[in-house]
Amino acid sequence: MDRIRIGIVGAGRIGSVHAESITYHIPEAEITAVSDVIGENARRLAERFGIKKYSSDWHDVITSPEVDAVLVCSPTPTHAEITIAALKAGKHVFCEKPVHTSIDKIREVAEAARETGKKLQIGFNRRFDHNHRKVQALAQSGALGNIEIIKITSRDPEPPSPEYAASSGGLYIDMMIHDFDMAMFLAGSDVTEVYAMGTSLVDKRIGEAGDVDTAIVTLTFVSGALGVIDNSRRAAYGYDQRVEVFGSLGMAADENDGDSTVRVSTAAGVTGDKPKFFFLERYMQSFTEELRQFIRAIREDGEVLVGIHAGLMSVVLAKAAKRSLDEHRPVKVSEICGV
Amino acid sequence: MDRIRIGIVGAGRIGSVHAESITYHIPEAEITAVSDVIGENARRLAERFGIKKYSSDWHDVITSPEVDAVLVCSPTPTHAEITIAALKAGKHVFCEKPVHTSIDKIREVAEAARETGKKLQIGFNRRFDHNHRKVQALAQSGALGNIEIIKITSRDPEPPSPEYAASSGGLYIDMMIHDFDMAMFLAGSDVTEVYAMGTSLVDKRIGEAGDVDTAIVTLTFVSGALGVIDNSRRAAYGYDQRVEVFGSLGMAADENDGDSTVRVSTAAGVTGDKPKFFFLERYMQSFTEELRQFIRAIREDGEVLVGIHAGLMSVVLAKAAKRSLDEHRPVKVSEICGV
Amino acid sequence: MDRIRIGIVGAGRIGSVHAESITYHIPEAEITAVSDVIGENARRLAERFGIKKYSSDWHDVITSPEVDAVLVCSPTPTHAEITIAALKAGKHVFCEKPVHTSIDKIREVAEAARETGKKLQIGFNRRFDHNHRKVQALAQSGALGNIEIIKITSRDPEPPSPEYAASSGGLYIDMMIHDFDMAMFLAGSDVTEVYAMGTSLVDKRIGEAGDVDTAIVTLTFVSGALGVIDNSRRAAYGYDQRVEVFGSLGMAADENDGDSTVRVSTAAGVTGDKPKFFFLERYMQSFTEELRQFIRAIREDGEVLVGIHAGLMSVVLAKAAKRSLDEHRPVKVSEICGV
Amino acid sequence: MDRIRIGIVGAGRIGSVHAESITYHIPEAEITAVSDVIGENARRLAERFGIKKYSSDWHDVITSPEVDAVLVCSPTPTHAEITIAALKAGKHVFCEKPVHTSIDKIREVAEAARETGKKLQIGFNRRFDHNHRKVQALAQSGALGNIEIIKITSRDPEPPSPEYAASSGGLYIDMMIHDFDMAMFLAGSDVTEVYAMGTSLVDKRIGEAGDVDTAIVTLTFVSGALGVIDNSRRAAYGYDQRVEVFGSLGMAADENDGDSTVRVSTAAGVTGDKPKFFFLERYMQSFTEELRQFIRAIREDGEVLVGIHAGLMSVVLAKAAKRSLDEHRPVKVSEICGV
Repeated sequence: MDRIRIGIVGAGRIGSVHAESITYHIPEAEITAVSDVIGENARRLAERFGIKKYSSDWHDVITSPEVDAVLVCSPTPTHAEITIAALKAGKHVFCEKPVHTSIDKIREVAEAARETGKKLQIGFNRRFDHNHRKVQALAQSGALGNIEIIKITSRDPEPPSPEYAASSGGLYIDMMIHDFDMAMFLAGSDVTEVYAMGTSLVDKRIGEAGDVDTAIVTLTFVSGALGVIDNSRRAAYGYDQRVEVFGSLGMAADENDGDSTVRVSTAAGVTGDKPKFFFLERYMQSFTEELRQFIRAIREDGEVLVGIHAGLMSVVLAKAAKRSLDEHRPVKVSEICGV
Repeated sequence: MDRIRIGIVGAGRIGSVHAESITYHIPEAEITAVSDVIGENARRLAERFGIKKYSSDWHDVITSPEVDAVLVCSPTPTHAEITIAALKAGKHVFCEKPVHTSIDKIREVAEAARETGKKLQIGFNRRFDHNHRKVQALAQSGALGNIEIIKITSRDPEPPSPEYAASSGGLYIDMMIHDFDMAMFLAGSDVTEVYAMGTSLVDKRIGEAGDVDTAIVTLTFVSGALGVIDNSRRAAYGYDQRVEVFGSLGMAADENDGDSTVRVSTAAGVTGDKPKFFFLERYMQSFTEELRQFIRAIREDGEVLVGIHAGLMSVVLAKAAKRSLDEHRPVKVSEICGV
Repeated sequence: MDRIRIGIVGAGRIGSVHAESITYHIPEAEITAVSDVIGENARRLAERFGIKKYSSDWHDVITSPEVDAVLVCSPTPTHAEITIAALKAGKHVFCEKPVHTSIDKIREVAEAARETGKKLQIGFNRRFDHNHRKVQALAQSGALGNIEIIKITSRDPEPPSPEYAASSGGLYIDMMIHDFDMAMFLAGSDVTEVYAMGTSLVDKRIGEAGDVDTAIVTLTFVSGALGVIDNSRRAAYGYDQRVEVFGSLGMAADENDGDSTVRVSTAAGVTGDKPKFFFLERYMQSFTEELRQFIRAIREDGEVLVGIHAGLMSVVLAKAAKRSLDEHRPVKVSEICGV
Repeated sequence: MDRIRIGIVGAGRIGSVHAESITYHIPEAEITAVSDVIGENARRLAERFGIKKYSSDWHDVITSPEVDAVLVCSPTPTHAEITIAALKAGKHVFCEKPVHTSIDKIREVAEAARETGKKLQIGFNRRFDHNHRKVQALAQSGALGNIEIIKITSRDPEPPSPEYAASSGGLYIDMMIHDFDMAMFLAGSDVTEVYAMGTSLVDKRIGEAGDVDTAIVTLTFVSGALGVIDNSRRAAYGYDQRVEVFGSLGMAADENDGDSTVRVSTAAGVTGDKPKFFFLERYMQSFTEELRQFIRAIREDGEVLVGIHAGLMSVVLAKAAKRSLDEHRPVKVSEICGV
């Protein structure tokens, strides 16, 4: 089979990451077009990775006859529109998360995918992380028995600016959304109810901007399991990314990745590496793997591993968490998505 | 100074544990009297540890002129009455937890301690555990900065009988009470609000008996920090006892104790010891240490390290958790203790 | 069966350690007599542990009709004489190591044990350490397959005075003797040849006194396996005690014990506890266990777990190592013990 | 500055590894020519990585005006000849190890490098490994104080065929050569004397072919430090690659890399990942890094990090070890290289 021809919409950081993965690590695909609303960005990415066509108009990418699949890496508000247009133009689509902040819009995307029968994968890269996916595989295999408790710790190394916090939609949608998806992935189950705690301890300007920077959210799964996620916008020791699944036969848990396995023993103690600090360094392997699996699904006409249901439910949980915080009570998922 | 003369009320399991600590590890104290409502039990304990006086009536212990301090190790419903009587008889008292299930009764005990000026220590032994107390010491020292998140995992190796679960007052009061106290100890702060989730996944007969066996409870501290406790009545791999404190400058967390540090590498993986299985094996060091500190407080006329406030607040949180579960809403501590 | 009545010869540090084990942890035995060439020492130990008879003459202990077994804790040069006399007086004997620095003398001890049929155990306590014995048990069980490589790291926290080094017989006999015994214990095999390296890097006065403070010794076992021991008189981070057994099916290795399992994550790294610093703290459990097993062997008329062969071969290897260092060549064990 | 143009001699496994590193990870270089004595291999590599010129004659590579630097990846017996020719043709050279099995030939290579002034780097990739280089950096920084003991464990996952063992020159030159170089790298010092033990425990046919498969070698460094290396041709649990440096201020040691950090706790124990099994998976990062540093040295006209001295001394130590084994005595390095 020929290589899958990829068009990239959005030449920012995540667009570049994906371009690198495809160019260097996925020989079954090649990038044939790129667009960015800032045309110069598209041109630079094209030059860097030897891409033949570039444009400042995403329509050029999604309508190109030399494009089989589109990576939607543009700003969040444009995800849904571009994804729907690309699907209707007959392209497979890989869409970054969140798909949209409107539940209705996400449902339109789901409908477009259903109608066109094209592959649609959502960019929850952490499902492909070497650590987390091994925990999930153990849970799914039955090795842990009936799953009873899910715990996720997810802490950023450094807080964003208060301005970003104010405009991002807030911690639950811009940060914890990954953990909501991970929780459902690990539990192998959707969620029925959410209770959210949140406060501003890291930077009071974040609180003044109406957001939280420290949060604990508990989850009740359809399966009957219980879950808890804790987030902080700042961990002095680096990017803290750990999950734990507890079941009737045992527990699987992962630890952070460090730069080395070296331990230094001195009069001061026995010291090892801190967690990797930067998300791209920590998760680069997963960014490549999610695309490899997307390409595989296209070539083998197989199932995508992260479909629109994940895109929808993660946003639903973020909205439920926000409402729970605002109204200081547990919130049923059915209140948000009306099912 | 002479040895502190100890009288023990209740010659059951925990009474024996304390007798062993004092006899073998605390030369500054000696046991001079023991009682148990089953006189034969008192006699056996007396014989085993060379105690001169034994009785089936606890009044004989608390009124003995050869007793300086009383360890109240009798069944929970009798704790408050015996403690108050012993204090009024001029004895120092070490009282097992929970002090009582009635808030008012606990307040009576507090009042008796205040009036008599005698030492009163509550048996939250885990505060003296080598792992947990190091985490607390780091938190208290400022090395972790401002404390923001407290996490406690506490899972028993095997579930109790459904009958026990039905009569014990339930998981929040008979099991999580330790974790409530630990949470306040680690945070260096009381709690303002509790939200409790609980379900029966381990043994449905526990659920039928009206109790839960799997639970997650979140806490809001007076200090502004957030906390979460997870409990299970059964961990296939042993007694799982871990705490984590996260602050602005970093995190301290402990791991379980095993029987050895050996790791075996074979084609099947790299395998180390499971956590110690039995609570006495796991926590024996802390049982001895809490008594050593009680004796020290008496001899040096110093502060006891776990006072009646801890005895009160742990029961208040257990009650708040039960109400939260029953009413499916966050519950303020002030609703329970009226402050 | 009645309690085994113990007499202790030598009321110094190790004598006190054993007295503590028996008094507090081994109810199947009791101490009935103690002697020390400094009578006051004997009296103090007797008082501390409630021992009825004390003396400045060891003959009083070994001939006492109220003594079933003797612990020989006197200075090394007296071990053999007292052990032989005690055996001939019809007592079981637990003898501290090294038995003697003369091979012939050790053989006399062996002969006395054979003739009298009394139990004779040598004080290689590390065989009873919770970590090392688990490694050995795994090796012996066949779980590691055919044993091929033995590695032992043994480093003291602080160097002795140069005076001590000069008078102790040197590192190979006063320090590495434990590791020689451990090596044979782990390999389940005697040694045929030794090659020794040694140098003075820690304190040049130790070198000037004719001893080494840093040493690596390799071993060839009768079984065909290879082994290596490294010793240092000083480890800045504490008492470093690790063993590793490698076989055809895998490897078992232990890590040092620390005071807690706590790990602290800050901007400076992830730091855990140092190894325990003091040998009594590190190995106290093994000191108690070796006596418990000695008492068990007497009461059940079973095999002692560390017999005179271990006492002999450890000294043989120490002598072979010294000769190897002096003559700068591999030395066969048969050169030393003439077998 | 323009990209460094690379010619590769030898299109086998290691040639492919280097081609991949340059193509995908080192944008400052590009491959312009490749040769292999089997022309078809050269053609295939050229096609796979888009290399314009390929040949069955290495002279075509080293004389090409479009080549700035040559990677010598051909069979060991040809390394020296090709390296010298390439240097004399004005090319920088990266030469795989061992440079040659003849000390004289290696000196000719050194002479050619000196005369031409071209960069010459030897392929000791492990110096660039993220774990080992961190240990070395700590040692070099002074953080460990005066270096006293070096320990290296290096065990292959599976033994080679007896035929390979017979033709490779034996374990000391084909396997332990890496560890000899690592030892000098970690110690920051050359070696004065070697004592070698070796036996055949893994596969007796290896012994029958005149080689050993299990070996321990001790080293005396010029600095006064002591060292020990243990090798096995087979570790049931994977590729075991660990180093330890012990100094007056402390110790640095690394652990094996696994595929994940996941630990699974069940009734059977707490199990983590085995070491990575395949050397390319384990060391791929270091293969890329050594080339990145080679390119950097050329572009910045800096020092290469692994020069011909390392190439020479590693072979000298392998020869000394073989002689030590054959003659059953410690062997001075000066016996081999006449210095």
